[in-house]
Amino acid sequence: MSILEKISSPADLRTLTPGQLETLAGEIREFLIEKVSATGGHLGPNLGVVELTIALHRVFDSPADPLIFDTGHQSYVHKILTGRRNLFDTLRQRDGLSGYPDRAESPHDWTESSHASASLSYADGLAKAFELTGQSERRVAAVIGDGALTGGMAWEALNNIAEGKDRPLTVIVNDNGRSYSPTIGGLAHSLAGMRMQPAYDKVMEQGKNSLGRLGAVGEHAFKLLHSFKEGVKHAVIPQELFSNLGLKYVGPVDGHDVRALVAALSYARDYGGPIIVHTVTKKGNGYAPAENDEADQMHSTGVIDPVTGRAVQVSARGWTDVFAEELIEIGRRRDDVVAITAAMAGPTGLSRFAEVFPERTFDVGIAEQHAVTSAAGLALGGLHPVVAVYSTFLNRAFDQMLMDVALLHMPVTFVLDRAGITGSDGASHNGMWDLSITGVVPGIRVAAPRDGARLVQALDRCVEVSDGPSVVRFSKGAVPEDVEAVESFDDFDVLAGTAGTAGADAAGQDAPSDGSLRVLVVNYGPLTAQSLAAAEALVADGHRATVIDPVWVTPVASSVVDRAREADLVVTVEDNGVHGGAGQMLARAASEASVSTPVRYLGVDQRFLAHGSRNEVLAEVGLDTASVVDRVRTWAAQEVQRRTGTADVN
Amino acid sequence: MSILEKISSPADLRTLTPGQLETLAGEIREFLIEKVSATGGHLGPNLGVVELTIALHRVFDSPADPLIFDTGHQSYVHKILTGRRNLFDTLRQRDGLSGYPDRAESPHDWTESSHASASLSYADGLAKAFELTGQSERRVAAVIGDGALTGGMAWEALNNIAEGKDRPLTVIVNDNGRSYSPTIGGLAHSLAGMRMQPAYDKVMEQGKNSLGRLGAVGEHAFKLLHSFKEGVKHAVIPQELFSNLGLKYVGPVDGHDVRALVAALSYARDYGGPIIVHTVTKKGNGYAPAENDEADQMHSTGVIDPVTGRAVQVSARGWTDVFAEELIEIGRRRDDVVAITAAMAGPTGLSRFAEVFPERTFDVGIAEQHAVTSAAGLALGGLHPVVAVYSTFLNRAFDQMLMDVALLHMPVTFVLDRAGITGSDGASHNGMWDLSITGVVPGIRVAAPRDGARLVQALDRCVEVSDGPSVVRFSKGAVPEDVEAVESFDDFDVLAGTAGTAGADAAGQDAPSDGSLRVLVVNYGPLTAQSLAAAEALVADGHRATVIDPVWVTPVASSVVDRAREADLVVTVEDNGVHGGAGQMLARAASEASVSTPVRYLGVDQRFLAHGSRNEVLAEVGLDTASVVDRVRTWAAQEVQRRTGTADVN
Repeated sequence: MSILEKISSPADLRTLTPGQLETLAGEIREFLIEKVSATGGHLGPNLGVVELTIALHRVFDSPADPLIFDTGHQSYVHKILTGRRNLFDTLRQRDGLSGYPDRAESPHDWTESSHASASLSYADGLAKAFELTGQSERRVAAVIGDGALTGGMAWEALNNIAEGKDRPLTVIVNDNGRSYSPTIGGLAHSLAGMRMQPAYDKVMEQGKNSLGRLGAVGEHAFKLLHSFKEGVKHAVIPQELFSNLGLKYVGPVDGHDVRALVAALSYARDYGGPIIVHTVTKKGNGYAPAENDEADQMHSTGVIDPVTGRAVQVSARGWTDVFAEELIEIGRRRDDVVAITAAMAGPTGLSRFAEVFPERTFDVGIAEQHAVTSAAGLALGGLHPVVAVYSTFLNRAFDQMLMDVALLHMPVTFVLDRAGITGSDGASHNGMWDLSITGVVPGIRVAAPRDGARLVQALDRCVEVSDGPSVVRFSKGAVPEDVEAVESFDDFDVLAGTAGTAGADAAGQDAPSDGSLRVLVVNYGPLTAQSLAAAEALVADGHRATVIDPVWVTPVASSVVDRAREADLVVTVEDNGVHGGAGQMLARAASEASVSTPVRYLGVDQRFLAHGSRNEVLAEVGLDTASVVDRVRTWAAQEVQRRTGTADVN
Repeated sequence: MSILEKISSPADLRTLTPGQLETLAGEIREFLIEKVSATGGHLGPNLGVVELTIALHRVFDSPADPLIFDTGHQSYVHKILTGRRNLFDTLRQRDGLSGYPDRAESPHDWTESSHASASLSYADGLAKAFELTGQSERRVAAVIGDGALTGGMAWEALNNIAEGKDRPLTVIVNDNGRSYSPTIGGLAHSLAGMRMQPAYDKVMEQGKNSLGRLGAVGEHAFKLLHSFKEGVKHAVIPQELFSNLGLKYVGPVDGHDVRALVAALSYARDYGGPIIVHTVTKKGNGYAPAENDEADQMHSTGVIDPVTGRAVQVSARGWTDVFAEELIEIGRRRDDVVAITAAMAGPTGLSRFAEVFPERTFDVGIAEQHAVTSAAGLALGGLHPVVAVYSTFLNRAFDQMLMDVALLHMPVTFVLDRAGITGSDGASHNGMWDLSITGVVPGIRVAAPRDGARLVQALDRCVEVSDGPSVVRFSKGAVPEDVEAVESFDDFDVLAGTAGTAGADAAGQDAPSDGSLRVLVVNYGPLTAQSLAAAEALVADGHRATVIDPVWVTPVASSVVDRAREADLVVTVEDNGVHGGAGQMLARAASEASVSTPVRYLGVDQRFLAHGSRNEVLAEVGLDTASVVDRVRTWAAQEVQRRTGTADVN
């Protein structure tokens, strides 16, 4: 029986010798490669923190001592050690193990969001709460990558953590020199400087030797190491970044030396105030395909061959590909177009633009706020920036989009990848908020293309906008086949209609006198199949139905409002939250034009959605074809009843 | 004729001797005290940067060289020196001079938003743009306070600025040891440390002597100082905060010594890469009432007596007072309630709570992100945090509210002061976005009380919510007299109605058969007078009208939806943007219940609003009583026409 199989809770770690902890690390690494290659997931980050997580659970008393994992994709080892090893075959699958900490899974999980740089703020709050409520024996530890430290909120937290001189809080900087891609900026150079100092290697050797001599004698050994760690502080780091904020600093510690980690963390746990433990780790450590992957060291993978690390299935052409290729075309035509990413050049496709136009591409780190406001600055300087970001991460820069871009009427184009339901990464990765918050922004133009052809057109138009922000949003994954229009007007395409010239259906004809309805289905984005099925079902029920797609969510074209006026019922279809979404944008424009046609919204419920495949989640929120058909038929029937029921009740 | 009167553009500064620049500084200070005491405005911050702004315009070539003022309330001196001296009698008044940089006023103004910590990102973008477009002679300078440096986005920017080793960019840290209140955190201690070093005083003296010897010889003198400033760097700052990010550092420089400032800035301008100039200033410098004001050194004042600094009018009891008093009451009942502010303890009223419960109050600096996520941490630790923040600044923490508080169902109460139209501080201070963005958040509860009594009730209920975030929002300024209900139901008050039991009006009666309408006016927040006037006008036109106030914007009570179902027209009234606002929240709930009553929205247009008094701005957006009456009458008439016009067109 392996050591791993005997670990059902962190308490089981405490009986192991340092040598056994090392063996366990090897077993966990094998386990991760086997399991994650079969399901897909965040392999690289977890291979990098095997020893660190073992040491954390050896030293701290989870869950009484909260362990907070920044971003959270590196919590697999933590899950393995806290009784969830047997669930790894279900990783990221519906009703299976979440790819992030999840409070419903275990009391050892304290947070859930996957948005970076938040861990230190949680930790600061928890430490303050323990102090205020007299729980002075409890300790808080947060693990944050050097990449997440480029995010501003981590600095806000450090500034506050430093203020609590006698408030115990351990910040473990997991320094692998990478965000998703290599970490950028002055911080990276500073951390690299620490790593490069000759003293560093010496101390690492010293640490290993000291610990080697102490041997496998359990808890007792670690207590002797305090004075040694003090030595590290003064020998290696005379005056450093964190010290200048008034924070005690320990490190650098070899993040793959479990004994050194246990020693450093034990010291930190007992220090009695805020303290930084700087560990140096290697993303993908111990797995050649990840270590050799210069691009992102298998940050996140699909299903792969565990030996070669190669994807089992070649992925289909995606929305991201369409965007990336068109942006390069635009870049060739326009030398004023520049691109900005917040540490996601690969996943957003900007790395391809960067290959062609390296000097016109800016990776600002995991720093969406700076991405957006520096884009405003670039625009003030006469350029047209394209900020490519995951839809859900735009939330981090809402104020900047509003106040720094739109207030100044700056021509910045936002490209929102992974909009709508993304599924397997859970609640905080779904891009179901962007239409609601961009809709607030005065003067903005927002497109939700239904297919690749429309994405190309929308992007081309966005970069032509010269007097304010523009947005194009699209889904995760494979781009669907183009859905051609039956007929096209200036401001919308007709995708289906019951009359000969479908677009003129509602307009050109009198209202039906048989109690049936003229229904206008307005499609926004990729749920075209659902929109068309809804119309088909309505027609089967004896109604007339037209499906139009305006592509542009805002501004709302008056011709679309006119169509709404001429209909008996409007149904809007989108994969954004209903609140403030595309449908409500149309409803508002209609109301302002004194149009009184009832509007029914097909969109995502305003709730947090557990992980699952995109189709599973769509079904859960009633946006699969069958549910859409059901709901639309019910709405039409209710509206018929209302209109025919009591004549003079509206 | 004073020197000041001869300055019509920055070029006029270049002919002045250092002695004349000092005289000019005195004249500007007198001018500021005279003018701002008459209009109200940001006196303290501007008195602190008189010499600094003179030196900036002496050294840099604005507007070719952009000068970016962080937050922007300290740009009065800049306005004086760029040809706007004669407009100061109109400061912050409608069609008058803005209290912030304003691109419509002058090409010397590059930004407009008043949200802190953004300047360095703008500057980084501008510097990149100048580099890319071959405008290597242009220089960018940003002035940022030590308070704004506690905001995370400033750190994101510094990290990126440091990356551009050969890209000229001057960051002037205006270090007065204060945000609005004294700056907190590790950063503050670090800066204070620099100020306190014995070497600092010595260098300051040295500087004065060196410059004294050089005398009033104009440009020539300053060129000799470069080597001196190099000396400062090495003598005073061996290894400091900014240096660790790889940024060249100069300082500390006496921020009230115009000669030393000119020298330091000249060096920085010509340095050829990113450089920090650390100036030490005194907020309110040269004006005893401001210098002696420990609380906020006259950060922002109303009309004051220029000699005593005392307010000319005693302000009426405000919304903030009601909140502050009730929170103390709650604090006495509940020892788990804690309060958090982002450097605004005074303006949000939390300073009063802090007096009674100092250990339960946390000022986190100008760091809304950390304020919110550390609140989530406090809640994870078993406490109930109340985060008090200006409505417009909540935008900075939207993602944190959504992902760090709501996703975890944390009981955090947000108190949004200065919601709705605030007026005189211009577009970026109006609190017209909060209902739209809080409405996105799953499980949130949001109250918009119409008066002080309802504010107290709502706050009491908010702190009882244990399973997710709650929000209470209220307006700026004096709290109106309580508006008592005609009748109260569980989920709404009836404020006026045409039937005996007004609340039952629409419900209990048949639809009118005379073409008149049953109109439901739904009031949210403080525009009660407008709601009541609208109803009165409708009744005068022969309609029936009921005014209800649900107080709670979300969740929408089913009884309110029922009222909407029974009406012929619903009119919603709020002082938030219409997009995603209270009205659309009700409309969505009604649509989900298959209610087809048309809804018309009275709210703030989705556009940026120039400064003016609150009433002026309300009138501009059609929310004064006269406009409301007009609009409602028109809507009702259109609806009657629609209903009677073509019978079978809905």
